[in-house]
Amino acid sequence: MNRRNNLLDLQSLAADEITYLLDTAQSFKEIVARPVKKVPTLRGKSVATVFFEPSTRTRTSFEHAAKIMSADTYGLTATTSSATKGESLKDTMFTLDAMGIDAFVIRHPMSGAAALAARYVPRKAVINAGDGTHEHPTQGLLDLLTIREAKGRIDGLQVAIVGDILHSRVARSNIWGLHRLGAHIRLVGPSTLLPADADQLPVTVYTDLKAGVEGADVVNVLRIQLERQDAAFFPSVREYARLFGVSKDTLKGAAKDVAVLHPGPMNRGVEIASSLADDGEVALITNQVTNGVAVRMAVLFWLMGASAGSK
Amino acid sequence: MNRRNNLLDLQSLAADEITYLLDTAQSFKEIVARPVKKVPTLRGKSVATVFFEPSTRTRTSFEHAAKIMSADTYGLTATTSSATKGESLKDTMFTLDAMGIDAFVIRHPMSGAAALAARYVPRKAVINAGDGTHEHPTQGLLDLLTIREAKGRIDGLQVAIVGDILHSRVARSNIWGLHRLGAHIRLVGPSTLLPADADQLPVTVYTDLKAGVEGADVVNVLRIQLERQDAAFFPSVREYARLFGVSKDTLKGAAKDVAVLHPGPMNRGVEIASSLADDGEVALITNQVTNGVAVRMAVLFWLMGASAGSK
Amino acid sequence: MNRRNNLLDLQSLAADEITYLLDTAQSFKEIVARPVKKVPTLRGKSVATVFFEPSTRTRTSFEHAAKIMSADTYGLTATTSSATKGESLKDTMFTLDAMGIDAFVIRHPMSGAAALAARYVPRKAVINAGDGTHEHPTQGLLDLLTIREAKGRIDGLQVAIVGDILHSRVARSNIWGLHRLGAHIRLVGPSTLLPADADQLPVTVYTDLKAGVEGADVVNVLRIQLERQDAAFFPSVREYARLFGVSKDTLKGAAKDVAVLHPGPMNRGVEIASSLADDGEVALITNQVTNGVAVRMAVLFWLMGASAGSK
Repeated sequence: MNRRNNLLDLQSLAADEITYLLDTAQSFKEIVARPVKKVPTLRGKSVATVFFEPSTRTRTSFEHAAKIMSADTYGLTATTSSATKGESLKDTMFTLDAMGIDAFVIRHPMSGAAALAARYVPRKAVINAGDGTHEHPTQGLLDLLTIREAKGRIDGLQVAIVGDILHSRVARSNIWGLHRLGAHIRLVGPSTLLPADADQLPVTVYTDLKAGVEGADVVNVLRIQLERQDAAFFPSVREYARLFGVSKDTLKGAAKDVAVLHPGPMNRGVEIASSLADDGEVALITNQVTNGVAVRMAVLFWLMGASAGSK
Repeated sequence: MNRRNNLLDLQSLAADEITYLLDTAQSFKEIVARPVKKVPTLRGKSVATVFFEPSTRTRTSFEHAAKIMSADTYGLTATTSSATKGESLKDTMFTLDAMGIDAFVIRHPMSGAAALAARYVPRKAVINAGDGTHEHPTQGLLDLLTIREAKGRIDGLQVAIVGDILHSRVARSNIWGLHRLGAHIRLVGPSTLLPADADQLPVTVYTDLKAGVEGADVVNVLRIQLERQDAAFFPSVREYARLFGVSKDTLKGAAKDVAVLHPGPMNRGVEIASSLADDGEVALITNQVTNGVAVRMAVLFWLMGASAGSK
Repeated sequence: MNRRNNLLDLQSLAADEITYLLDTAQSFKEIVARPVKKVPTLRGKSVATVFFEPSTRTRTSFEHAAKIMSADTYGLTATTSSATKGESLKDTMFTLDAMGIDAFVIRHPMSGAAALAARYVPRKAVINAGDGTHEHPTQGLLDLLTIREAKGRIDGLQVAIVGDILHSRVARSNIWGLHRLGAHIRLVGPSTLLPADADQLPVTVYTDLKAGVEGADVVNVLRIQLERQDAAFFPSVREYARLFGVSKDTLKGAAKDVAVLHPGPMNRGVEIASSLADDGEVALITNQVTNGVAVRMAVLFWLMGASAGSK
């Protein structure tokens, strides 16, 4: 297996790298389930979450993954950081690097920010925790792990991704990860929320929900940003929910054992029906969250773990 | 002793449960006084403080209690949490539960929020750190411990609670805890700040400060929210201080060895005279704070400790 | 060596105390460079950063120093603290003291705030992390360490401090530390940004940049607060950059091996040219940051370390 310093996207990962991360995460799930969740793997290592956008769940998931492996964590957010004093991303990274921080988990509203950050700290590990509309690779990995656990495989599955594809880094990481492992991918949403370059992606496009989920093994429902309404991407929340809201009813044409994913946080009653979200037989949302911790442990281990000493 | 998953209030606790917690806290005070404050009790366990209202002292006290026992802590506040994205309390709890967090310390402006949160994570420990005007049970316990240390007992004591009883979750937890352990309770305040259902509580009501503290063994002075003035609960801060401000002078009719408590943060010169607050012989405010750490250790231990493995 | 409880300034430190701290920090740098950065020195001790002004770098540097030595850390900021409820510095310190916190790192916009805080917790360690325009002693120490590493000595060096001396606590700590160890100090800036009492300081004053850096061994470039422009301390950022911006060109008259320092965060293109900042042969900015962690470890060790048990 290649050693890498960074995880910036899934697009550039090989299938065997993705499979290695999923296998490692699978084995780490046992640790997350222990009553005493503590292994010494990353003792004396430090991980900084540097978030220029707020996110409880992703930040806490990374911190928990790091602390389970005995790393120290530092949380830096835009509102409390020197960013308010006008410090550039460059100088922020230089500074944290010089302090001896070993790994950086970056979330930023600008596509490409994590890659930029990585260039400033070439000897350190950088993990993209969501950059603009580009990618959110650990979300992609945890979706893959959840699907693989539920279906026993990725290869050959019909996976529909439903909603605001245009602005979704989750969608993009799913597309590349699923494609690499052999799934068939459908993008389903109103034409205003589908990417202009969809014909260059390994996907099939649907603007009708029922057609898009027909026979699907997996339906990954994206969060709709309610503020998009103001920008005229869709006429109203009610209209969106009526046409693209996923419910048991709209899934009638899907595979009998269809699995539903959602990256959270959910707008219940908008993109996903509350009764569907709470049906743990179909909706694997809590599995996704648990797998998120295991996946992030796997990524930290890959980039910083024992044999990383030889980097 | 019953094992419980949650500490949501003192109203539903039996006397022997309260006494068990006070005894455990008393024994933990020795650890807090050590130069090296670290025991392995909760190693590999994780505690999240989920605060929808700001509070330095309570949050830090819980974190310190958890860290002394070697737990990992995660701090989530409303301003940095997904609450800004509109995530419901339900989905916040589901998510943190699925991540493998073991215990939740909840502060919320809505009465009943902690109980609601507990229903979403039935296999995890939930501690109410203050919910609206309902209860703040660890504050009640630390007040009880402080009183018991000072007086040697709770049973039969005359305890006056002075101030804004109506809005005070501290008062409510004090009332139930003190009542369970046999104290006589007086509520003292302007009639606009006394609860409408006072006649159904195990208390005697006073609207005159001197009468209310006459012969009292303990006077627990509540913080007055200065913003209540705008809502016409009392005519002015100056008026409030003149009629209900507790000082050495207004305590002349109390028991010779009267003990004064305040939950903090204090408005010096309003509900409590600064000279009284700084008289460590009478005012036990720093004892309360120290006992707060010990009480929270006891509660975490009760809900999560060694034998909790058998839950 | 004297034991002290507090580090409030460099002005009151003796030369041998400063040298002891620099020597200790120098020996700790090896720990910061290890792949596994963890020593048990302060296990079971707790350090609270109490910041009434935002600062990522300083807070994280202290936290990292504390965690490398196995202390627990607590971060309290003005926006999340009881300060929003109007709690005084006095009661904040009383409370944290009573909780059993061992050391306090204080940043406050008011000169003298750290000394005031220290008076409230006489048995605990207080470190000034910047108080108004007074001092920032750990920044002074890290600058001294960086200079000593680069030049092999402090004694007899010509050190120019350039910029807004008037408002700079960094300048003041540099002046006292450099003076104590025998350097010659020049203050260089527009007359509106030089202190009125400069004639009572052990310095020479220059209002011309080229004259001020002529023959200098070290140039310490201060951050210019862009908002000073509105207060008419200088006519415009462009004017300031033209007259006092430090670049390779303006340093032509300095010593051949001149070393350039900047406390960060930098306004590139204003007080320092970007090309100069990125020239690691001349600008020692990343060394400063690394030394900051080592210096803060040394200070924590001095105030709280092993033999501190005998205090």
